[in-house]
Amino acid sequence: MTFQESLNWRYATKRMNGTSIDAKKLNKILEAIRMAPSSMGLQPFSVVVVEDLKTRQTMAPACFNQPQITESGAVLVFSIWKQITEKEVTTFIENVAKTRKATAESLEGFKNMLHGFIGGKSQEELQAWAARQAYIALGFGLAACSSEEVDSTPMEGFNPAALDEVLHLDAKGLKSVVILSIGYRDAEKDHLTKAAKVRRASHDFFVNI
Amino acid sequence: MTFQESLNWRYATKRMNGTSIDAKKLNKILEAIRMAPSSMGLQPFSVVVVEDLKTRQTMAPACFNQPQITESGAVLVFSIWKQITEKEVTTFIENVAKTRKATAESLEGFKNMLHGFIGGKSQEELQAWAARQAYIALGFGLAACSSEEVDSTPMEGFNPAALDEVLHLDAKGLKSVVILSIGYRDAEKDHLTKAAKVRRASHDFFVNI
Repeated sequence: MTFQESLNWRYATKRMNGTSIDAKKLNKILEAIRMAPSSMGLQPFSVVVVEDLKTRQTMAPACFNQPQITESGAVLVFSIWKQITEKEVTTFIENVAKTRKATAESLEGFKNMLHGFIGGKSQEELQAWAARQAYIALGFGLAACSSEEVDSTPMEGFNPAALDEVLHLDAKGLKSVVILSIGYRDAEKDHLTKAAKVRRASHDFFVNI
Repeated sequence: MTFQESLNWRYATKRMNGTSIDAKKLNKILEAIRMAPSSMGLQPFSVVVVEDLKTRQTMAPACFNQPQITESGAVLVFSIWKQITEKEVTTFIENVAKTRKATAESLEGFKNMLHGFIGGKSQEELQAWAARQAYIALGFGLAACSSEEVDSTPMEGFNPAALDEVLHLDAKGLKSVVILSIGYRDAEKDHLTKAAKVRRASHDFFVNI
């Protein structure tokens, strides 16, 4: 399948068959997510990877018992940083310096710009901004799943506070914002497997100026 | 290049060479964006496609004169719906019914669920939700550009109100949230072309539970 064909092949799978994801494929999907760009490169979120079925069973009630949580092969919980402060910026700048063998002086302007950006926003605004960055990575994860012919379902229908509690995310400084369940479709049980894809028509969705 | 290699090849291009995008490639990129999933399938945003250089020149001041606006081959402005009401839900449900040859009765439950979702949120909350959906599509656009070996730069650094005015988005019921400039890197001028990609290490970015 071409990349385009794979995007047409994918759909928000409602019922999966419980098959686990081959480690190599899972790793490719995770790497695509890690490669996603983010505003200024900060990546202000983490991805919680849950393969263990027992843990997923404990997550199910917080996810309104939607079957994908336990019928998938893995559940990825995109979770933003609860706090974004000078500390996180400093760690990031150190990573830039190390990776690019750059001097602290050469990164001074960039660092100040970042501090200005962070300092000028409330934690609530920063969390909204962080969530958007996580959604770019969600897009990369979805596209990577298609490319690997692994089914995927993005899920916003869950109780973030309840899920954070089950996964002890608070203690990790994280807050869940969106879930990606990945696995393999159960074509027998999932009536949507053969349903036509519904999208707005090009002439409506695109505005050419 | 494999999909994974292409994601590593891409970077947020700062300087582009003004080459326009081949129509077939542009179409593939736009189709990938249109195929991106969204919460409940509503796609509560449009993508404004600006190829015309003169129009892009008028956009530049609202984008702090960043060179990608005019040095790219096209600028895509992801713009959320200003209002999300029962009208948009009705149009969507009609599209589902038509595409899937489904009866109005069979979609009644889904329609009521959507009305409940929309009705239970303020327009501000709905706009934040719509922006997140646009960011999934931004992720698809970025991945599609890589796949087509077209350079791309996601841009949040612009004045949305000023840009909306230049592009008359208000009259179209839209509000810009993020830009994707696409084109071809100018390796001579762009010092980042050869810079190592900076990402958080896997053991830090992923939390395995």
